[in-house]
Amino acid sequence: MKKLINSVDTVLSESLQGLLATHGDILSLGEDFKFVRRRDVVRTKVALISGGGSGHEPLHVGFVGRGMLDAACPGQVFTSPTPDQMVAAVDAVSGAPGTLFIVKNYEGDVMNFEMAAEMVAGPVASIIVDDDIAVKTSPHSTGRRGVAGTLAVERIVGAAAEQGRDLETLAALGRTVNMRTRSMGVALTSCTVPAVGRPTFSLGEDEMEMGVGIHGEPGCRRQRMASADEIADELLTPVLDDLAPPRGTPCLLIVNGFGGTPMMELYLMANSAARILAAHGLILARSLVGSFVTSLEMAGCSLTVTTMDEEALALWDSPVHTAALRWEAPGLAQA
Amino acid sequence: MKKLINSVDTVLSESLQGLLATHGDILSLGEDFKFVRRRDVVRTKVALISGGGSGHEPLHVGFVGRGMLDAACPGQVFTSPTPDQMVAAVDAVSGAPGTLFIVKNYEGDVMNFEMAAEMVAGPVASIIVDDDIAVKTSPHSTGRRGVAGTLAVERIVGAAAEQGRDLETLAALGRTVNMRTRSMGVALTSCTVPAVGRPTFSLGEDEMEMGVGIHGEPGCRRQRMASADEIADELLTPVLDDLAPPRGTPCLLIVNGFGGTPMMELYLMANSAARILAAHGLILARSLVGSFVTSLEMAGCSLTVTTMDEEALALWDSPVHTAALRWEAPGLAQA
Repeated sequence: MKKLINSVDTVLSESLQGLLATHGDILSLGEDFKFVRRRDVVRTKVALISGGGSGHEPLHVGFVGRGMLDAACPGQVFTSPTPDQMVAAVDAVSGAPGTLFIVKNYEGDVMNFEMAAEMVAGPVASIIVDDDIAVKTSPHSTGRRGVAGTLAVERIVGAAAEQGRDLETLAALGRTVNMRTRSMGVALTSCTVPAVGRPTFSLGEDEMEMGVGIHGEPGCRRQRMASADEIADELLTPVLDDLAPPRGTPCLLIVNGFGGTPMMELYLMANSAARILAAHGLILARSLVGSFVTSLEMAGCSLTVTTMDEEALALWDSPVHTAALRWEAPGLAQA
Repeated sequence: MKKLINSVDTVLSESLQGLLATHGDILSLGEDFKFVRRRDVVRTKVALISGGGSGHEPLHVGFVGRGMLDAACPGQVFTSPTPDQMVAAVDAVSGAPGTLFIVKNYEGDVMNFEMAAEMVAGPVASIIVDDDIAVKTSPHSTGRRGVAGTLAVERIVGAAAEQGRDLETLAALGRTVNMRTRSMGVALTSCTVPAVGRPTFSLGEDEMEMGVGIHGEPGCRRQRMASADEIADELLTPVLDDLAPPRGTPCLLIVNGFGGTPMMELYLMANSAARILAAHGLILARSLVGSFVTSLEMAGCSLTVTTMDEEALALWDSPVHTAALRWEAPGLAQA
C-alpha cells in the first residue's frame, strides 16, 4: 500500500485539518473532528446535515457551504459516522426551523442517522438517497445504494433551504429529486482502505466491474473491458430505462470519476454520454464532469442522470460556495 | 492498458468534444481541434495563449475563460502542439494589443511556440515557465521544467490582462510570477500513454520517484516510500531554499494531484505543507488543493509555492470563470 499518509490512525483527522487549512474562509471544524460546518451559521433556515464514511471526498465535507450543506459528519474511511457526531452537528448549526438529514442508503448510515434523529430536540426529517440502480441489495444496503446522485439532492435541496423553505417542503423536494435521479458505475481497478492495507477486490488485466458500488462492493457483473461508448451505453441504458423520461426532458448529467480516473477520460465519457442522451431526444441542460463522489483511488466512473424541471434548474443555478462546487450565476451546459 | 476510451487515435478529439459539451457556455472549439478558445472573444485586450501536450487536464484547456487564458492549443498526449495550432488560435482571439504566449519549458513546446511567434502578424511576446526545481535538465528540457506553477502564472497574468494591461507589462509580470514560483513532485505510480499502451516507467511496491516530471520523466532520486510529513518536507525544503522568502511573506500554496491521488490524501498533504510553511514563518495566504496539472492517472502529487505581494493577491482574487477554476470574489485560505 502506497499512500500519502502518516499513519492509518490519523488519516481522517489530518485530512480534515488540511481541508480547513485550505477552506478556513467558509468552513469550521467541530470538536474531536465530529463534523465540518459552515463558518457562517444561519440558524433561521432549515439546516441540512449529511455525512457518511470518508474516502468519498469531496462528498460530503467538500459540499458544506452556502447553498448546499450546513454540516457534514465524516466517519472513518468507508465507515458510518456515529450518532453523537450528528447530534453535535445539530447543536452547532440547527435552529427553530429544524434539521434535514440527507442519508445515503447504507445500513450503518441509515441506522445511525435514525438514532441521532431520536436524540435531538427540534424538528428533524430525513431523506434517504438510493440512486444506484446496479443492484437491488448489496453487502451494505437493503435496497439500492446511495451514490453520486447524492450530489444532486444536496445541491438542489441546499439551494431551496437557502431560500428559506420549510422542513416539510424541503424533505418532499429531496424525495422528488431522489426519485428523478439514477446512477450506475464501473470500476477498472480496486481501491485500498488504509486500515486494511490491501485492495478491496481484484480485477484481471482485461476486466471491469460493471455496477460497482462506491466502497468497491460487487456490481451486477464482471466483464471484459469494453470501449467508452459501449460502457456509457451499458451504464446509461438501465438509468434511462428506469427513469423513462419523455423526449425533450431537460437533464442534469454527472460524469463522476472514482478518484483514479484522468479528466481526459471523464470528458471523453461525457462526450459518449451526451450523444446517448441526444439519441434519446433528451436535453443536456446541465452537466458536471469531475471526481465528486469517489472511492479513494479507484479507477472508473459513474454516470448519473437527474431529470430536471424549471424549479430544479433554477435551484441548481443559484449561488453555491463550497470547497468543491462554487458558482454565483447559472452555467448552461450548452449555451 | 485499461482506459475509458474508444480508440487511441480519437482520445484527444473525443475528450475535447466532451469538454465542449460540458462547458459550451464559456468555450468554443477551433477547426480540426486546433485550439479551445473563450466563447466571448475580447480583441481589445492582450490575448493569452498557452498549450502543450494533452494528458495534463485540466491544464491548459480547463483554464480557458474570463480572467485566465483566451485560448489553449492541445497537442496529442504528452506531445507539443504544432505551430499552425498557435497561429490559428492567434487569428481567432488576438487583436491590436497583441498576444502573450505562456509556454512550459520543454524543447518541443518552446520551439513550436517560437516558430508560431515568427509566423503571426501582430505583436507577440512569450513567457517561459520553469518552476520545477527537481532537476536542472531532463529528457524533454534544457533547464528546469514547467509544471504546476504554470497555473499561478496563467491565473495572475490572465487577471492582469483582463484589466487591460499592455503586452510588455504582462510579459514582465509573468516573468516575475515565474521567478517567485517553485514546484517539486513525487510519483507513487507511473502513467500509461494511450498510444504506447504500457506504463512509462515502473516502481517497486515500496518505491517512489522523487522529483518526477509531469510526463513521468525521471526525478532526482528513487527512494523508499516515506510518510506524508517526510515527503512534504523533501518537496518543500528545496522549494523554500530556492525561493528563500523572508519570514512573514504571504504565499500561495498549490497541492496538486497527478490524476490518481485521492482528495483525502491531497488534503492531508496540504496539512503537512501548511505546517512546514508556518514553521518557516510564512503566511499561507491562498491555497489550492486538487488535481490541476496532471499526468494522466499517475498517483502522487506536487507542491508549488508562489510568493505573493499585494498586487499578486489582488489579481489572484479577481473574478475567474474557466472549466477548472471559478470564483467571483476573494477566497482566503485562512480567514
